Amino acid sequence: MSKPPIKWEDGHLWLLDQTCLPSKVIYLAISDSSQVIEAIQNLRVRGAPAIGVAGAYALYLAAKDYLNLPLERFWESLDSSAKSISSARPTAVNLAWAVSRAKDAASNATTTLEAANLILAEAKKVEVEDRAGNEKIGHHGAALIPEGSTLLTHCNAGTLATTGYGTALGVVRTAWASGKLKEVIATETRPLLQGARLTTWELMQDNIPVRLVVDGAVGHLFQRGEITAVVVGADRIAANGDVANKIGTYGIAILAQAHGIPFYVAAPFSTVDLKTPTGSDIPIEERERDEVASFAGIPSAPEGVTVFNPAFDVTPSQYVSAIITELGVIKAPYNEGLRRVAD
Amino acid sequence: MSKPPIKWEDGHLWLLDQTCLPSKVIYLAISDSSQVIEAIQNLRVRGAPAIGVAGAYALYLAAKDYLNLPLERFWESLDSSAKSISSARPTAVNLAWAVSRAKDAASNATTTLEAANLILAEAKKVEVEDRAGNEKIGHHGAALIPEGSTLLTHCNAGTLATTGYGTALGVVRTAWASGKLKEVIATETRPLLQGARLTTWELMQDNIPVRLVVDGAVGHLFQRGEITAVVVGADRIAANGDVANKIGTYGIAILAQAHGIPFYVAAPFSTVDLKTPTGSDIPIEERERDEVASFAGIPSAPEGVTVFNPAFDVTPSQYVSAIITELGVIKAPYNEGLRRVAD
Repeated sequence: MSKPPIKWEDGHLWLLDQTCLPSKVIYLAISDSSQVIEAIQNLRVRGAPAIGVAGAYALYLAAKDYLNLPLERFWESLDSSAKSISSARPTAVNLAWAVSRAKDAASNATTTLEAANLILAEAKKVEVEDRAGNEKIGHHGAALIPEGSTLLTHCNAGTLATTGYGTALGVVRTAWASGKLKEVIATETRPLLQGARLTTWELMQDNIPVRLVVDGAVGHLFQRGEITAVVVGADRIAANGDVANKIGTYGIAILAQAHGIPFYVAAPFSTVDLKTPTGSDIPIEERERDEVASFAGIPSAPEGVTVFNPAFDVTPSQYVSAIITELGVIKAPYNEGLRRVAD
Repeated sequence: MSKPPIKWEDGHLWLLDQTCLPSKVIYLAISDSSQVIEAIQNLRVRGAPAIGVAGAYALYLAAKDYLNLPLERFWESLDSSAKSISSARPTAVNLAWAVSRAKDAASNATTTLEAANLILAEAKKVEVEDRAGNEKIGHHGAALIPEGSTLLTHCNAGTLATTGYGTALGVVRTAWASGKLKEVIATETRPLLQGARLTTWELMQDNIPVRLVVDGAVGHLFQRGEITAVVVGADRIAANGDVANKIGTYGIAILAQAHGIPFYVAAPFSTVDLKTPTGSDIPIEERERDEVASFAGIPSAPEGVTVFNPAFDVTPSQYVSAIITELGVIKAPYNEGLRRVAD
């Protein structure tokens, strides 16, 4: 099993620095919430479920700093930290969800220490639930996968994006364990190469056959009839079933439909945001030019070139064959299906 | 105007080493046909029209080596060289076309020197015609482009891919000169980043506004309504209008159709191969894994990962709004249209 991206050990938060993978496995010892924010912003920890868990632990680290404040000031400071942590990245809803869940868990505390301990307990609970949820996602998803399948995935929605088994790669792992999977095709996922660096790495550790392709090769693979189904993760799912996920996902969904191939989204139900009516209401993070214009510090484009670097796109629900959550598989009409499961 | 990729000067062939762009402008002095083959195979010179011209000059360099052979042995050796040069890369048909044109030009020669001189004259003619053809492509193509357009292009079909003005970028340049163009969007074009390294570079030299995006961002741009039309080059066009071009082109064509946006292919008529009935008859070159698994010698994926690296894909003609050639604009039905223009 692949290395976990987040560990809580000896009173410390440990984050696997995913920017160093696959060449180096480095765990950062984190003692401060601002370090978590930095790690989230620079994708040392990434993946919607994982940044949710990291955010909940970050809130505890903040609370620890405020232990000596009067209770009212403690809550003010904690609120302010919760806002900073939640807004470290705008697209994935799991981050704000987990932070607010950790904060709410402490709302009846009568001392700062009690509040901090309740936050820590809730962060651990978010982590444990995420792990258990992943296995259910794997189980529900694998049931949709026929024997002898080749599954295409984009970016990394694996162990490294969660705290356990993975969402899209949870489906992959369960399908593999049940003998249904022939092979995974991993897109490299520019600009930050999460597919090339992370998905291949964790699948190779589990001895699951994987082939790496550039993002542009997906159409050609569909055309050759090599793909049985697409399985991707999600950063936010709107109430109508529109899915925000890593840039490039939408193009894959359009290609899947053009070739009559199912396109599945695997995510914990915490990724569903019923307060976001449609995909057009999801904020799309734009990131800095250098992610595109250079690699490992070496320029890959002319100095001064204008870059547009959106980190996510939105796949309208009409292209989504099913949403696989720990609570079951949801199909269209999504407005009804998602609300029913939420209740 | 951007630097030419090929120059014939002082009895030498000079090739701009495009693997060094944009950081270094280096012309290689080439005196041997095997050096041209190496340069074509390693993409020092690339782009279907440009490798055609380079191939014709390579045949002259070969002929020069055979000057002292008896005429019959000269032809045998020349045939063998022509085959080696033509098969340096399999997909672009312009290479075999230009080499065979240069060879045929010499077929009535009665001495080896006369043959060599006729080959050189024909190579120069191929070069001059390509340049003149580019301007006509630009003219015909720009007529299709509305005022205030944003054109998306993939890979590099510019000056650097031809010997003059470019094919897709010929259309861009003429549209810009006539005040119709707002902006170009260039996909970076993995794995070898011809869009990031070459297209942006040559457009910036001409002060044409260009924005660089990762290949996966194309769908998001269509969704935002930012693209007026797509213009790409081609490596081979089958008799039925199917188009082989850089990997990723097919996905862009599918997205263009899904958004009701025109998808134009700009190419000299020498790219049309009436002997290839359909796209499925076009050989697709597969290139080495390291193009995908590393950048500038630095690994970007785990050691030993399996890579699938097709260099081209085929866009079926039903997704092609028009083929823009120096002989005019051809629309569906392509079988008829292409044959009519060829006659």
